[in-house]
Amino acid sequence: MSAERLIVIGGDAGGMSAASEARRRRTADSLEIVAFERGRYTSYSACGIPYFVGGVVPHSSSLIARSPDEHRRRGIDVHLGHEVTAIDTQAGSVTVRDLESGVERQERYDQLMVATGAVPIRPDLPGAEASAIFGVQVLEDGLALRRLLDSDAAPRRAVVVGAGYIGLEMAEALVQQGLEVALVDRAPQPMATLDPDMGALVAEGLRAIGVTLHLGAAVEGFDTTGDAVSGVVISGTTLPADVVILGLGVRPATALAEAAGIRVGPSGGVAVDRRLHTGTPGVWAAGDCVEVHHRVSGRPAAIALGTHANKQGRVAGVNLGGGYATFPGVVGTAVTKVCGLEVARTGLREAEAEAAGFDFESVVVDSTTRAAYFPGAAPITTKLVAERRTGRLLGAQIVGAEGAAKRIDVLACALWNEMTVDEIASLDLGYAPPFSSVWDPVLIAARKAGAAVEQSGSEPSGTA
Amino acid sequence: MSAERLIVIGGDAGGMSAASEARRRRTADSLEIVAFERGRYTSYSACGIPYFVGGVVPHSSSLIARSPDEHRRRGIDVHLGHEVTAIDTQAGSVTVRDLESGVERQERYDQLMVATGAVPIRPDLPGAEASAIFGVQVLEDGLALRRLLDSDAAPRRAVVVGAGYIGLEMAEALVQQGLEVALVDRAPQPMATLDPDMGALVAEGLRAIGVTLHLGAAVEGFDTTGDAVSGVVISGTTLPADVVILGLGVRPATALAEAAGIRVGPSGGVAVDRRLHTGTPGVWAAGDCVEVHHRVSGRPAAIALGTHANKQGRVAGVNLGGGYATFPGVVGTAVTKVCGLEVARTGLREAEAEAAGFDFESVVVDSTTRAAYFPGAAPITTKLVAERRTGRLLGAQIVGAEGAAKRIDVLACALWNEMTVDEIASLDLGYAPPFSSVWDPVLIAARKAGAAVEQSGSEPSGTA
Repeated sequence: MSAERLIVIGGDAGGMSAASEARRRRTADSLEIVAFERGRYTSYSACGIPYFVGGVVPHSSSLIARSPDEHRRRGIDVHLGHEVTAIDTQAGSVTVRDLESGVERQERYDQLMVATGAVPIRPDLPGAEASAIFGVQVLEDGLALRRLLDSDAAPRRAVVVGAGYIGLEMAEALVQQGLEVALVDRAPQPMATLDPDMGALVAEGLRAIGVTLHLGAAVEGFDTTGDAVSGVVISGTTLPADVVILGLGVRPATALAEAAGIRVGPSGGVAVDRRLHTGTPGVWAAGDCVEVHHRVSGRPAAIALGTHANKQGRVAGVNLGGGYATFPGVVGTAVTKVCGLEVARTGLREAEAEAAGFDFESVVVDSTTRAAYFPGAAPITTKLVAERRTGRLLGAQIVGAEGAAKRIDVLACALWNEMTVDEIASLDLGYAPPFSSVWDPVLIAARKAGAAVEQSGSEPSGTA
Repeated sequence: MSAERLIVIGGDAGGMSAASEARRRRTADSLEIVAFERGRYTSYSACGIPYFVGGVVPHSSSLIARSPDEHRRRGIDVHLGHEVTAIDTQAGSVTVRDLESGVERQERYDQLMVATGAVPIRPDLPGAEASAIFGVQVLEDGLALRRLLDSDAAPRRAVVVGAGYIGLEMAEALVQQGLEVALVDRAPQPMATLDPDMGALVAEGLRAIGVTLHLGAAVEGFDTTGDAVSGVVISGTTLPADVVILGLGVRPATALAEAAGIRVGPSGGVAVDRRLHTGTPGVWAAGDCVEVHHRVSGRPAAIALGTHANKQGRVAGVNLGGGYATFPGVVGTAVTKVCGLEVARTGLREAEAEAAGFDFESVVVDSTTRAAYFPGAAPITTKLVAERRTGRLLGAQIVGAEGAAKRIDVLACALWNEMTVDEIASLDLGYAPPFSSVWDPVLIAARKAGAAVEQSGSEPSGTA
């Protein structure tokens, strides 16, 4: 009996985790595994790119968790510089183009892993394709940017468009590299994944390291000459720029799947079941290209994060390997460190809670990361959003000093279990003066949220 | 109508939190509140005492959260240097002795709050009452020890008896103060609240800062002359000592309650219901003197910790104030920082799981506190104990560098919700390179525990 054949499209977290897990469970006699990657790298930490650009991580090689050769030694036949251009789900084959030679060929599959990742959103404006305007999505982007920074023509002034995670991390990285940095975003505060009041704390941090903020401002165009850029036009004025970084977010890369008739969900990601099967026979999907179940909103969502991609890859790999595993969804957790601030969120922010139809109370609590009297105690601001009447936690946001961000995990676990803020206030969390005041900030916030919910319960509901 | 009268016995966390919360909810017209404290201080952080002794926290006043005068200004009639010597539950009165004058009087109560705390365990050995042999329980102990350290007769050699939290924290504090420190414990490894394999990591840390360990050794006596000490006798040899610290743990201070017929539970703490009522009319209890429900073992337990005392005080205060609140139990979380190591535990360690009748699998995982390539990434060892067949998490232990300990909180929350290790491995925890590898140590350990449970399930159960 000949082996089954698994083809993996995409050589990063989702695809290669699936390949590795399937390989662990099935020998080459039982399963042949072939992976096609358009770029030159496999299994690297995209989240680490801003730290490489900023010089915090000196070598790009450290970002690579597993090289193509390591995968090959483990029995995964990796082809770099190969782009899958079409899937024929009837025939069970894909069309692959060798990007160097331009030659296309057909490759047969029994099982197909779609792990095409995400594509950065680019504004549809003249000049946006100039090479001095960088998306930061794949390792090649980071390497190209570093080459530019290290060159004789090193840029002096940078404009970062988009104040999300990548935008902020890149703004800080460029400040660390000695550039003058301006940051532009349509929203009134940076980091629109937070509520504006929490985003305002991040804005302070950015200003403190010298970033000029242009908020509530839309980019109208780029002043470019060939591949060079000289300015970014916003609201009638031009911000001078030698280099532009786009941090406008990403969307699932689903063109290939859609063209093959593989279903894409309302969030824009490839629709999958709990085992990450697409519903098309033999076709699985994982990583930034898929749609996930958001356990708090109850709705489908597309969230590009390495941690989900790795988990999903493993789940798909277990199932491809003959086991049983599921990806039971997300609660919307994300953390970052920027300008000396730790920033974290989970669940729904106010606007999301409203959009999902929840009525809610919000509380914000200022406390300290350690016992107030302990050396190194520093500010931490915790915001909770809780459903009215039930008191169920809907979301949490934290901005603070070292030790702040990972406190989001206990709230993520609480959301996962649909806990009420009253019950969260009873949680048996670790206390010792170097780590927390005797009431952990999470507990203080939960208590306050409990009081707000209790009080709102006694108010007449509805408006006059 | 005259006010109800609440008498509070004990002026620290449990008692004064209850008093404060009751006061917030009821005015002096409705509730008179009188508190009796044997010592000279109210509402201080006992957990901070080792850091004050070690000089990390320079002023003892920083440990005081709320002074007697602050309580008085808030309408709580605090009497220092007053010891309650008897409770008459029939008459609804207590006997109070003014420790300065020696005069006793009766005080009437409608509601009584028993918050007598805990008493340090002292070995029943000759010389153990010498004043150079210190318990570290109340702020006065810490102040006396500091006075000794700062005196002309400052000790040079210390022996710490008992390698629990307080023992270890005191050992480090005395090293910081320049003393030669020996640590003695009956157990084979320090910190018997951890499994021995995890305790061994703490032993390494202690040796690294120069503490001499005498493990598996019992104290047989003290060489004392009056109030001075010169040595500690263990297993036939004598360890020279100018000062001795007892860190043998504490037991609930229940003598007063027991003498009054208030029920004490099997754990040795005052038995209370969910609202912290003792079952004796009008009598409530909170803090280190009470018995709590351990949510994992399902058994009563007595756990002296400031965080529980504060929560319980608040719960009793809400109920005394006419509201409704409950203390739904603990999962056994504790953290400390010692010798540059962060140490955390929650739930049941192996011996406790066995004693509670669980069959279980244990896994230990070594990983890093940040992405391995990120500056400052340092070791973290995570141990999980999970029930066989069900995969339910039973306990967790963490020893590691900065950023390690508070990861216990997500496991405490998982225990609270009776999650399985498989589900924990799916949790949506915060990931960014400064905080975690893409698989958080908690997730890696949960995956490994899931695999161990799965494997054990296929083994024949029972022994041949």
